[in-house]
Amino acid sequence: MATHTLAADHPYALLLAEVEQVSLLASTNQLLHFDQETRMPPAAVAHRGRQMGQLARMIHEMATSTRVGKLLAQCRADGRLQADRLAPPAVNLREIGRSFERALKIPPALAEEAATLASTASHAWAEARKANDFGRFAPWLEKTVEIALRKVEHYGVPAGGEAWDALAEDFEPGCTARDMEKVLTPLRAALLPLLAKITSCKRAFVNPLADIRVPVAKQDELLRFLAATMGFDFARGLLDRSAHPFCVSLHPTDVRMTVRLAGQDGMTGLSFGSLMHEMGHGLYSQSLPAEHGGAPMGQYVSLGIHESQSRMWECCVGHSQGFWKWFCGPLKEHFPAAGGARAEDLYAWANRVEPGLIRTAADELTYNLHIMIRFDIERALLSGRLKVADLPAYWNARYQEYLGVVVPDDAQGCLQDIHWSMGLFGYFPTYTLGNLYAAQFLETVQAAIPDLEQRFERGDFSPLLNWLREKIHRQGMRYRAAELCQEVTGRPLSHEPLLRYLQNRLGRVYGI
Amino acid sequence: MATHTLAADHPYALLLAEVEQVSLLASTNQLLHFDQETRMPPAAVAHRGRQMGQLARMIHEMATSTRVGKLLAQCRADGRLQADRLAPPAVNLREIGRSFERALKIPPALAEEAATLASTASHAWAEARKANDFGRFAPWLEKTVEIALRKVEHYGVPAGGEAWDALAEDFEPGCTARDMEKVLTPLRAALLPLLAKITSCKRAFVNPLADIRVPVAKQDELLRFLAATMGFDFARGLLDRSAHPFCVSLHPTDVRMTVRLAGQDGMTGLSFGSLMHEMGHGLYSQSLPAEHGGAPMGQYVSLGIHESQSRMWECCVGHSQGFWKWFCGPLKEHFPAAGGARAEDLYAWANRVEPGLIRTAADELTYNLHIMIRFDIERALLSGRLKVADLPAYWNARYQEYLGVVVPDDAQGCLQDIHWSMGLFGYFPTYTLGNLYAAQFLETVQAAIPDLEQRFERGDFSPLLNWLREKIHRQGMRYRAAELCQEVTGRPLSHEPLLRYLQNRLGRVYGI
Repeated sequence: MATHTLAADHPYALLLAEVEQVSLLASTNQLLHFDQETRMPPAAVAHRGRQMGQLARMIHEMATSTRVGKLLAQCRADGRLQADRLAPPAVNLREIGRSFERALKIPPALAEEAATLASTASHAWAEARKANDFGRFAPWLEKTVEIALRKVEHYGVPAGGEAWDALAEDFEPGCTARDMEKVLTPLRAALLPLLAKITSCKRAFVNPLADIRVPVAKQDELLRFLAATMGFDFARGLLDRSAHPFCVSLHPTDVRMTVRLAGQDGMTGLSFGSLMHEMGHGLYSQSLPAEHGGAPMGQYVSLGIHESQSRMWECCVGHSQGFWKWFCGPLKEHFPAAGGARAEDLYAWANRVEPGLIRTAADELTYNLHIMIRFDIERALLSGRLKVADLPAYWNARYQEYLGVVVPDDAQGCLQDIHWSMGLFGYFPTYTLGNLYAAQFLETVQAAIPDLEQRFERGDFSPLLNWLREKIHRQGMRYRAAELCQEVTGRPLSHEPLLRYLQNRLGRVYGI
Repeated sequence: MATHTLAADHPYALLLAEVEQVSLLASTNQLLHFDQETRMPPAAVAHRGRQMGQLARMIHEMATSTRVGKLLAQCRADGRLQADRLAPPAVNLREIGRSFERALKIPPALAEEAATLASTASHAWAEARKANDFGRFAPWLEKTVEIALRKVEHYGVPAGGEAWDALAEDFEPGCTARDMEKVLTPLRAALLPLLAKITSCKRAFVNPLADIRVPVAKQDELLRFLAATMGFDFARGLLDRSAHPFCVSLHPTDVRMTVRLAGQDGMTGLSFGSLMHEMGHGLYSQSLPAEHGGAPMGQYVSLGIHESQSRMWECCVGHSQGFWKWFCGPLKEHFPAAGGARAEDLYAWANRVEPGLIRTAADELTYNLHIMIRFDIERALLSGRLKVADLPAYWNARYQEYLGVVVPDDAQGCLQDIHWSMGLFGYFPTYTLGNLYAAQFLETVQAAIPDLEQRFERGDFSPLLNWLREKIHRQGMRYRAAELCQEVTGRPLSHEPLLRYLQNRLGRVYGI
C-alpha cells in the first residue's frame, strides 16, 4: 500500500508523528551525551545528570503513552498496512510494536532502580578498578545481576531459551545465546589452533611510526583527509576528541565521531584504526534513509550490524595490503618525519597478533577470544552456575586456557570493562557478531567487485561504500539482522567467512 | 516563613518542582543553541530547527500547564508565603506568576505565527542586507510590526503607557518608554556637546598591536589567562570560538562564552574587549545562587542588569588605566612581538572615540547615540508615527544629526542589525541601560573601595568581583532592576554617573 495516499489523520500517520517526536527528543539526548564527553566543564556533571534523566523520563513517557498504544492497535487492525511485510508500514509497525511492548514490560520503579544502580555501581567499579580490589565491586555486581534477573522476569524468557536472551534483545533483537553458541563454538575450535600456530612462529615486527612526533593539528589534518577520502561527509558530521573514542548520530545530517585526546605531539593520537572504526559507524549513520525520519525504517538494525560497519573499515579495509599501499603516500606527505616508512611494514604491523590481557587493545584474532570468555561468564552469572565471588578465578583460568596469558591482577582482569557495572548483559557478543558479519559481507562484495583491493591501492573506496550503502545502509530496519545477512550474502551467518579471512590474511603476514 | 519547614507536598514545593523542570529543559535548549553556533555541521541546520522547536513547544506547555496555574493560585492563597516580600517564596511567586500570566496571554497560534515569521523575516533580512536592498526587507518588516502589534493587543498596554512598553517587558521587566526617555533625553543633551568637543580635538592615536601576528593557540592562552585572572572559573565554564561572540549559561556550573573565530594568525581574534564583555556576562551567570535551582531567586534580573555586568568588565575595568598598566605585562609575556607596546598607548587606544556607522563597532560614548536612534525608531514604528517605507530616510537623518556621519547605503545603515527582523522590539535600549547601570554601580563601588583602580594595577580584581557578587549576583531576582539600583547605589537610575564617567575618562584621554 502506498502510504502517501493515507489521510493526514490516519492512525498510521498519527503514529509516525508520535514516533518522530520520540526520536527527535532522543537525538537531543545524544547531544547531551556528546557534549558531556567532549566539551562539558567538569563541575557541570551533576546538572548534566539531571538534564539527561529528565529527557530519559520524557522519552520513556512519550514512547509508552496510551495514545501510542491505541494508534498501534488501530494500525494493526488495518490489514492493508501489513500486506507487504518488507514495505515501510509493515516494518515500522513491527518495530514500533516491539519497542512499545518491551518498554511497557518494565515497571517505571524498576527502571528507575536500575538506572540509579547503574550510576552507583559504575562509580563503585571505577573505584574498585583503581584500587585493584574486586571485593569492593563484588556486592555491586551481585545487585546488578539481581536487578537484571528481575528485568528478565518481567520480559519473560523465550520458549527454549534462557535469561541471557531476554536481555540481549536490547542490543541484538532476535539473537539468542543458542544462536551465538552456534557460531562461537566452531569459531573457537578453529581459532585456538590458528593462534597456537601463529605464536609459535617467531616473526618479528617493526612499528615504522614508533619514533615520530607530530603536532595534534597535523594529526587532525591527516585524520580528516583519511575520513573524507573514505567518504565521510564533513558537511553532515564532525570529528572531535575525547577520552574514549565514540560515534553518535543525532540525524544522518549530524554524525559525530571522536578519537582519543592526544598530547601536543604524542603518537598515541594518530590512531588511524580508531578513526577508521568510528568512521565506519559514521558512514552507516550518514547513509541511513533520512526520508523515513525518526521511524524504524530510517534506523540501524542492531549493534551487531552497526559493529560490522565499523569493523569493515577498521579491519577489512584498514588492515588490507591495498589500503597501506595507498595510504603510505598521504601519510608521508602529511608527516615528513615518517619518510622512511615502508607500506609492507605498516601493513604487517597492523596485522600482528599478540595475545594480551586487555580486550580493547586486542588484535583481530584474539579479540574474539576475549568476547567468548565474557559471553560464557555472563550466561553463567545469569543462570546461577557462576557465583560473583568465583568470577576472578573463572576469568583467570579462561585467559590462561584461551590466550595463554597469566592475569596478574583483577584491574587487568575481570575489572577491565565497565559494561556489567552498568547492567549491560548481552552486549559483549555484539562485538564478535560485528566481526562475523563484516567478514561475511566482505566475501560477498569481493565476489561482486573482484578488483576491490586494487581500487583501495588507488585510494578509491567508493565501490565498497556504494555497495554497503545499497545493500545495508539504505535498508534501515527493513530486515532483522539474521535476515539481512541471508538477504545480502545468500547464506545464514556462519563462522567460516571470518575464519577464512583470518587464515588468509594472517597466513600471508606470518607466512603460514 | 522558613520554606524548609514546608511539607514536600505543599503546593509551594510542588510548584518549585514544576518550575525546576521547566528550567532544566530550557537549559537543554541552551545547549542546542550553543552547539549550533560553535560545532554543529552545516547540513544539520534543518534537524536542529526541529529539535529546538520541539523543546520550545514543550517548555511553553510545561510553563503554562493548568497544574502550574492551580498550584500558583493555592500558593497565593497562603498569606504566609508572601509575608516577607523580599524572601525567596514571595520573590518566586511574584516572578513565576508574572511569567505564567504573560505566557498565557499569547494564543499558541499567534506564538507559532510569530516564530515562523521571525525565521523567514530574518532570512529575508540577511538577503536584503547582502543585496543592500531595503525594499526587499520592507514587506517583512511591515509584517513583523503588525505581528508585534497583535501581541501588544493580547498583552495590553499599561495605563498611561504605549505599545513599546508591552513588548519591552520581555527584556526589561517593568521598564517603560517613559522611564527610558527620562534618562536618555538628558543623556543625549549632554553627550552631543561632549562628542563635538572630542571630535574637534585632533588627538592622534596609535594601535600598538596593529602589526603583530599571533597564532590562535597563543591568543587562546592569553584570553584564558585573562579570564581566569578576572575570576572566571574554568571548572564551571569554557571558552570557545564562534562567528559572533556570545555567552550562554546552562547552569552556574556550566557557563559558556565565545570569542570571534580568528584566522591562523590574525589579530582580529585577540579581541580582549570582546572576551571581557562575554566574561562579564559569564561571571554574573557563574555567581547566581545555584541553591535556588531553576527558580526565579536563582535567575538574573533583566537584560539591562546582565549587560551592566558585561560592560562593567569590558569598559569600566577593561578601558581603565589601571587595567592596562597591569595587562601590558602579561600581554608582552605571551606575545613577544608586542614587546614595544606602551601601557599608555594601549589605554588611549582602548578609549578613542570615533563616530561611525556601525553600532557593534562603536566606542563607549557614541554607542549610546546608536541606541537612542533605534529606540526612537521602534517607538515610532509601533505607534504608527513612522511608516516602514520612511525608515531609511529617518535613520539617515538621525545619523547625520547625532553622529555627524553620512550613511552611504542601507546595508551600513538601517539594515545593519538583525533584531527587528526577529521581532525584537524593546531590546536595543537594554544595551544603554547596561552602560547606565554599570556606571552607577561603579561610582558606588569606587566609594566603597577607594583603591579599586590601584588594585587593578596589581592584577587584583577580586575586590570588584566580590562586591558585585554580594550586591548583585547573589541576589538573583530578589529585586526588580530599578529597585536593585536603588538598593545598591542608594539612588534611582540616573544619566549622571555615566555622563561623569565619560567626561572624566575621555576628558583625561583627550586632555579636555
